Amino acid sequence: MITLASDFGTPYPAAMKGVILARTETPVDLVDVAHDFPRGDVRTAAFWLREVLPYFPPAVHLAVVDPGVGTDRNALVIRAGEHALVGPDNGVLLPAARRLLEASETDALSAFTIDDSSAESATFHGRDVFAPAAAAVHEAGVDALETVPSLTPVPSVVDLTIPDARLEETGATGEVLVVDDFGNVVTNVPGAVLEGREDVRVDGQRVPVGETFAAVPPGEKLATVGSHGFVELDVNDGRGDEAFSLAPGEVVRLEWPI
Amino acid sequence: MITLASDFGTPYPAAMKGVILARTETPVDLVDVAHDFPRGDVRTAAFWLREVLPYFPPAVHLAVVDPGVGTDRNALVIRAGEHALVGPDNGVLLPAARRLLEASETDALSAFTIDDSSAESATFHGRDVFAPAAAAVHEAGVDALETVPSLTPVPSVVDLTIPDARLEETGATGEVLVVDDFGNVVTNVPGAVLEGREDVRVDGQRVPVGETFAAVPPGEKLATVGSHGFVELDVNDGRGDEAFSLAPGEVVRLEWPI
Amino acid sequence: MITLASDFGTPYPAAMKGVILARTETPVDLVDVAHDFPRGDVRTAAFWLREVLPYFPPAVHLAVVDPGVGTDRNALVIRAGEHALVGPDNGVLLPAARRLLEASETDALSAFTIDDSSAESATFHGRDVFAPAAAAVHEAGVDALETVPSLTPVPSVVDLTIPDARLEETGATGEVLVVDDFGNVVTNVPGAVLEGREDVRVDGQRVPVGETFAAVPPGEKLATVGSHGFVELDVNDGRGDEAFSLAPGEVVRLEWPI
Repeated sequence: MITLASDFGTPYPAAMKGVILARTETPVDLVDVAHDFPRGDVRTAAFWLREVLPYFPPAVHLAVVDPGVGTDRNALVIRAGEHALVGPDNGVLLPAARRLLEASETDALSAFTIDDSSAESATFHGRDVFAPAAAAVHEAGVDALETVPSLTPVPSVVDLTIPDARLEETGATGEVLVVDDFGNVVTNVPGAVLEGREDVRVDGQRVPVGETFAAVPPGEKLATVGSHGFVELDVNDGRGDEAFSLAPGEVVRLEWPI
Repeated sequence: MITLASDFGTPYPAAMKGVILARTETPVDLVDVAHDFPRGDVRTAAFWLREVLPYFPPAVHLAVVDPGVGTDRNALVIRAGEHALVGPDNGVLLPAARRLLEASETDALSAFTIDDSSAESATFHGRDVFAPAAAAVHEAGVDALETVPSLTPVPSVVDLTIPDARLEETGATGEVLVVDDFGNVVTNVPGAVLEGREDVRVDGQRVPVGETFAAVPPGEKLATVGSHGFVELDVNDGRGDEAFSLAPGEVVRLEWPI
Repeated sequence: MITLASDFGTPYPAAMKGVILARTETPVDLVDVAHDFPRGDVRTAAFWLREVLPYFPPAVHLAVVDPGVGTDRNALVIRAGEHALVGPDNGVLLPAARRLLEASETDALSAFTIDDSSAESATFHGRDVFAPAAAAVHEAGVDALETVPSLTPVPSVVDLTIPDARLEETGATGEVLVVDDFGNVVTNVPGAVLEGREDVRVDGQRVPVGETFAAVPPGEKLATVGSHGFVELDVNDGRGDEAFSLAPGEVVRLEWPI
C-alpha cells in the first residue's frame, strides 16, 4: 500500500501514480490522503500527516510539500517501524514519523537520501524522484531499505516540531495549528483542560464548552475536544475561523472563568 | 468493495480509509463517491446517494453527512438486498436503500444500530464508529449482519423522503432538488412531461425543450431530461442556476404553452 | 487498469466507476487523472492527457470532456500501442494517443466507434456509453478490440493538434497552453531555448531564467523549464498567471536579451 499526499491539486498526482504503477510488479493499493494541502506550507502538511497516517496499516507514505524542489535539499526515505515515509528533507515527514514510531516496537527512525541525479525535471521531483523511490521501497519492503540501490543512509535530517501549548493554572496559551475544511479552529491546547468545565474564555470572550457541535444552537460558538484530541473552537453549523477571527499560526489565549 | 461519501472535504476521509484498511483482512476496493457534499445537508446527500449507488455492484456504502454527530442519534447499518449502507440515523441512507431494494429480489430493509460506546472522539464518528462498522460488515458479509457483535437489530429508523412534484393538466409544480457542479438545475419533475413538447414555460418564461445541451446555441437556456430522469433547467456551455436564478429547495413552476 | 478523466466534478465520476465495476469480472484498478478539467475545454484536457497518460503502464484511459454530448458526434475507442483511449470524437484523445504511439513499437492508431443506441440518457454518455465501453475493452483486452460487439472500426476521426511555437533567431512566439493549479503559466515554447541564458524578455519585460523556483526570492518572477519540457513563467511562492497577466490561449513573446 502506498498513500499519497501533496499540495499539487490536479492532475499532477496522477503522474506520480502512473510512475508508481509502471514501476511496481507486486500489486499496490494507492490511497490519496490529500492533494490540496496549502501550497508550500510544510508545517500544516506535517500536522495533517501526523494526525492521519497512524490510522493506516503498515504502508509507504509519499508526501510532497516541497517549496525547495530542485535545490540542494535532500530527498528522503524515513523508516518508522513498519512504515516508510518518502518526501523532501524539510521536516514535513518528521512529526508523522515520530508518531508512527511510538506505535511500533522499534527503537529509532532510520533515514536515507534518494539519488535524484537522473530526475527528468528540476521542478517536479514528485514524479521524477519521490514516486520512483516510493515504488522501489514498496517493491523491496520497508525492512529492506538497505538493499535499495537509490538509497544511502544519512545520519541526520531536518527536523520540524509542532509546538506545544503553555499550560498555566488560570489558563493556557496556545496556537492555531490548522483550520479544517469545516472552518473548525484546531489549537495545540490539549483537550484535557476542558474536562469538567462548562465554559472557557477565548481571547477574553466567554464560550460554552460542549462535547458535540449540537451542544449549542446552530450558529453559536463553542469550545470542544476535537478528533485530534486538542481544543477546537467551532461553530455549530458554521465556521469557527470566521466567528473567532482566528487563522493558522495565530496565538490563542484560553482562561478558566472563576 | 466499500464506497465512501461524506461532507468532510480533505483529509478526514483518508483517516476513514486508514481505519478500514487496518481492520480488513480480505482485500477491499475503496471507491470515493464524493466528499464535497454540502455541509450538513442531509437531503442533498440522500438524493445523490440514491442516484449514484444503484450503479454499483453489491457493496458496502459508507455515507456520513451527520450534523448530529455525538448526540444520541443512532449509528446505523441498513441491509438493502445485496448492499449494505452505513451512516447516521438521520434519513441520509433511506432513499438510496429503498432504490437498491427495488432492484433486488428481497422484501424489506433490515436495520441495525452500531455500538458507538468506544468512540475515541465525539466529533468524528466517521473515523471512530462508521469506518470500523463498514470494515466489520465487509469482513462478515452483507448477508451475515446478524453475526457482527457491534450490531443490534433495530425496528425503526428515521426516514427521509425526497418530495414528488405535483403534476397537473396545464403544468407541474416541483422543487429544485440539487444544482450539480455544471450549474444544471435538477428538479423533481419527471422528464416524461417534456415528451413531444418544443418548449415549456419556466416560472413564466418560455424556454425551448432540447434533448441535448447542444440543441441550443452556447449561452442559451433550455429544459432537458437530465441523466436522473428529471426535468433539468440548463444553459448550453453555462450555468443554469444563474440563468434561472434557482437554488436547491426552491419551488419551480412549469407550464405547457398552448 | 482504467484511468478516468473528465470535467464532471463530483459525484458523476462515481457513477462511471459503479458502471465499470458492475460490468467487469476481472479485477480492475481505477485511477483518477482529474475530474476538474475546465468545463467543455477540449484542448486543455487534451494537453493534460498527453502529458500525464504516458507515465502509466498499459491501460484503458477513459476521458470525457464532451460539450457535444448527445449530438451525432461519434463515441470512440482508440488503440495506441498497448493502451486504449475511450471518449468523444472531438479530438480530446488524439494528442495523448499520438504520444502513446510514439512510445510503442506499433505503427498506427486504430479507431472504433461505440454503439450508443442504448444510452439511458442523452446528457450523460460518460455513464451510459463511455464507461460501459471502457469496461468492455478492459474485459476483452486492448489487442482484441475487433472482438468487442459494441465497437465498429472507423477510418477517420476528428483530430486536434496542440500548436507549436514559432522559433526565431532573436526569440520565440508561442502561446499559453494551460495555467496549472500553482498558477504556473505553461507555454508551448520548448525549454531548450533557455539553455545557457541568464535572462529572457517576456512580452518586453526582463525576467531571470532559473532552474528551480527557489532560484529567485519569494514573490519574484522567473522563466524556467517546467516538468512538461516547455518554458514556464512562474513566481516563486506565488502565481505566475497573475504576475504576468497571462491566460490560456494568449500569445506570449519571448526575446533573447543582447
